[in-house]
Amino acid sequence: MKSKLVAALLATVVAGSAFAQAKPEDAIKFRQAGYTFMAWNMGKLKGMLVDNPASFNKEQAIAAANLIAATANSGMGALYVPGSDKGVGFKETRVKHELFTDKEGVGKVAVAFNKEANELAKVAATGDAAALKAQFGKVGETCKGCHDKFRKDEH
Amino acid sequence: MKSKLVAALLATVVAGSAFAQAKPEDAIKFRQAGYTFMAWNMGKLKGMLVDNPASFNKEQAIAAANLIAATANSGMGALYVPGSDKGVGFKETRVKHELFTDKEGVGKVAVAFNKEANELAKVAATGDAAALKAQFGKVGETCKGCHDKFRKDEH
Repeated sequence: MKSKLVAALLATVVAGSAFAQAKPEDAIKFRQAGYTFMAWNMGKLKGMLVDNPASFNKEQAIAAANLIAATANSGMGALYVPGSDKGVGFKETRVKHELFTDKEGVGKVAVAFNKEANELAKVAATGDAAALKAQFGKVGETCKGCHDKFRKDEH
Repeated sequence: MKSKLVAALLATVVAGSAFAQAKPEDAIKFRQAGYTFMAWNMGKLKGMLVDNPASFNKEQAIAAANLIAATANSGMGALYVPGSDKGVGFKETRVKHELFTDKEGVGKVAVAFNKEANELAKVAATGDAAALKAQFGKVGETCKGCHDKFRKDEH
């Protein structure tokens, strides 16, 4: 029983380290890809919830929200490999060094984003545009919370 | 049944015209981001299903499969805007001009990818690694089917 548990734990560690071995430049590229594709989907939600509510489309809202939740659930934390605090993926990373040292702060923003992104998918499924708009705002706040703390300004 | 699916996909593309107004360079960037982040998730599945089966982890498999299905369902067709057959997003696009003219061929690969990606998420949820490995292979074939037909070789 105990060896089974140890084996399971080891399996998790190995699986985790399998993609933690990504080269820093690949890890940076993958996380930039994830955030950029998520931004496209946030943009679609903004379009139909904020800019042009007449264009609201339940199926597209669900699709966008599911993509955002799936990205939040994808384990992107594994892409912050040692050595990836500096470097070029698709472009130069804007991550602050603090993301690699402030475990408590990172945990807070990660948990908040994950929680609100999954709630976004749940609310989208109801088709309630007003509720979705409110939840979209909450997700946006968690994005901003992380950017303010752990992302350098564009220059 | 198949024509129903094609109609649904076409409806998505048409409805997607609201965000089809993206500038070609942005559209190229967003689709490159989507494919790249999906590639990271395919890579994770490959790691735990093909390269190192001992590292199989149900939760991570579900997360990766859900991301792939959500990407397939996100309406990326809308990112193939007029003028985006050439240009630079994160890098120069490798799309072939045929993707913009061969509607029937594009419909076929899009429907196949969508079907197999959604099946991937369903199979992942069962936790059956052998079945997931088989389904992972089917998804890979639909990726390759599109690449062979509509993507230029890297040079």
